[in-house]
Amino acid sequence: MINQRVVLAAYVDGMPRPGDFRLEEVEAPSPQEGEVLVRNHFASVDPGMRGRLSGKASYTAPVSLGEVVGGATVGQVTASRNAKFKEGDWVAAAFGWQSLGLGDGRGMRRIEETRIPPSAQIGVLGIPGLTAYFGLLDIGRPQAGETLLVSTAAGAVGSAAGQIGKIKGARVVGIAGGPAKCRWLREELGFDAVIDRHAESDMAAAVARCCPDGVDIFFDNVGNTLVDPVLPLMRLHGRIIVSGQTADYNLEGDARHGLVNTRAFITARLKMQGLVVFDYVREFPNAWRELTDWILDGRLRYREDIVDGLENAGDAFIGLFNGKNFGRKLVRIAQP
Amino acid sequence: MINQRVVLAAYVDGMPRPGDFRLEEVEAPSPQEGEVLVRNHFASVDPGMRGRLSGKASYTAPVSLGEVVGGATVGQVTASRNAKFKEGDWVAAAFGWQSLGLGDGRGMRRIEETRIPPSAQIGVLGIPGLTAYFGLLDIGRPQAGETLLVSTAAGAVGSAAGQIGKIKGARVVGIAGGPAKCRWLREELGFDAVIDRHAESDMAAAVARCCPDGVDIFFDNVGNTLVDPVLPLMRLHGRIIVSGQTADYNLEGDARHGLVNTRAFITARLKMQGLVVFDYVREFPNAWRELTDWILDGRLRYREDIVDGLENAGDAFIGLFNGKNFGRKLVRIAQP
Repeated sequence: MINQRVVLAAYVDGMPRPGDFRLEEVEAPSPQEGEVLVRNHFASVDPGMRGRLSGKASYTAPVSLGEVVGGATVGQVTASRNAKFKEGDWVAAAFGWQSLGLGDGRGMRRIEETRIPPSAQIGVLGIPGLTAYFGLLDIGRPQAGETLLVSTAAGAVGSAAGQIGKIKGARVVGIAGGPAKCRWLREELGFDAVIDRHAESDMAAAVARCCPDGVDIFFDNVGNTLVDPVLPLMRLHGRIIVSGQTADYNLEGDARHGLVNTRAFITARLKMQGLVVFDYVREFPNAWRELTDWILDGRLRYREDIVDGLENAGDAFIGLFNGKNFGRKLVRIAQP
Repeated sequence: MINQRVVLAAYVDGMPRPGDFRLEEVEAPSPQEGEVLVRNHFASVDPGMRGRLSGKASYTAPVSLGEVVGGATVGQVTASRNAKFKEGDWVAAAFGWQSLGLGDGRGMRRIEETRIPPSAQIGVLGIPGLTAYFGLLDIGRPQAGETLLVSTAAGAVGSAAGQIGKIKGARVVGIAGGPAKCRWLREELGFDAVIDRHAESDMAAAVARCCPDGVDIFFDNVGNTLVDPVLPLMRLHGRIIVSGQTADYNLEGDARHGLVNTRAFITARLKMQGLVVFDYVREFPNAWRELTDWILDGRLRYREDIVDGLENAGDAFIGLFNGKNFGRKLVRIAQP
């Protein structure tokens, strides 16, 4: 059996380029005692992958040249020599951008929930949804009536964070790029106000206009360029959740923007905290239950942006940094 | 009776200057029903005052031109028409830089502890000691064996924070200016290591050398210029306590240094939180009890830097920003 896979061809320096990735085909291994072979149906395309592709240490081990790129996958067991998995089981794992994944059960989760499409297991029920859930509820701790500002609000993390904020009774303001995303946030997800960052030259003024009482919680995925103008608009005891730093990932040295308006940390007693969702792994089962209930109730909606074929995964990743994608970016590897 | 007092003559712009303050003498008011007249013995000279002198809003109301400058005072009641205070009582209050203070009891605390000199009531038992106590224990939450880094470590806040860290079992590293302060921290206060910032051209290298396992808690009073190089040295789940921003108080606009190394917020899951000690006012009595015990045990020591006469208060304040003072800066107004 042939395994098609995308490997790192060159360490990413600055913005990722097509030549950084290479598609190749290798003979698939057969599962040994205790192992499971999974045919991946969907693989995630995450901006957060960027940190592992430069050859430098991050909060996860870097990907070496020639290694498979990518993160979360969802697929079906094709062969199993592990008593916990049988042929046909749906499995969420992190096999990366390849058509077949071989595992020994560690880091693999059998999916028993069948009312929700499998792709959601690596989106709103995967790392993005869990990041929104724990970032907002553990660090942000929204109270009814508070104002929650969410950046990259039409993305997988931001859209979940905003909707969970609504569920908790916050007034939710989203920042997104372009009228289509803004319309979706307001009309379909029920955001209270939306800022189209393409239409605003002064983000501080736009946030001040849409958050006239200030911001209690800022759930950010952009980085310093956006946090800095928001800092003076934070209310007393405001919380800033550093969930992602998309705008900073590709910048080095002097090109990185600094946080200057830090005086607000004292004047408004702000708290800013970074988040890596794997720290909450023991609490994932509770989160899955609650997120699933909200999805089935229609209170938590999501949108996917699916490209077909592993040969398009690299370009899909590069496209994440130009702001054009809309929804959770996935690559479809096999048709169910 | 004459009240000698120092008032704001000009709003402070950038570094404070002697002409920003004016000494004047006015007739002291007589206490009316419910009021108390206090002869101030000591008044504090705090870098944190700076924020109130520019005419702009801060976390406390700005001082207007012609108003009395200054903060905490300790003195003795000379006349009372308030049943809660009698002549001769020692009182800690915030009458500012003036020889007589008139109050109605609000914001005034009768001191019953006589084993500790009154000046300590506006130092290690006043706002600086309380700031160290709540900043370190509520935000920092030191665990035995963790590394605590403290800046302006020979100052009133820093020296208390470092010693409380020692009491809690942390390894404590101080940053101070000059050999005399460094010697005091190591030999008298028991700091584990000290960095003389006058002797170091590369603070990141100096901190890395003295904190070989990284920094779990950074108790900072300096601001972005120091927090930025320390960020990459913070350990997983590190905490940064923004207690003061001395280096930033006199800077405006582009002269302010920004925090660039914020990637560490995600990679090390950092928390940075600002502190205004008045938020903990209900817990002050417990803190006073514990701080008093530590002082009487000899585990919490302090150093005062006393100037005589209100006419020298302005220069003493200006001197805070050149790094030359050593210990809690106080102006002595009356001899006990």
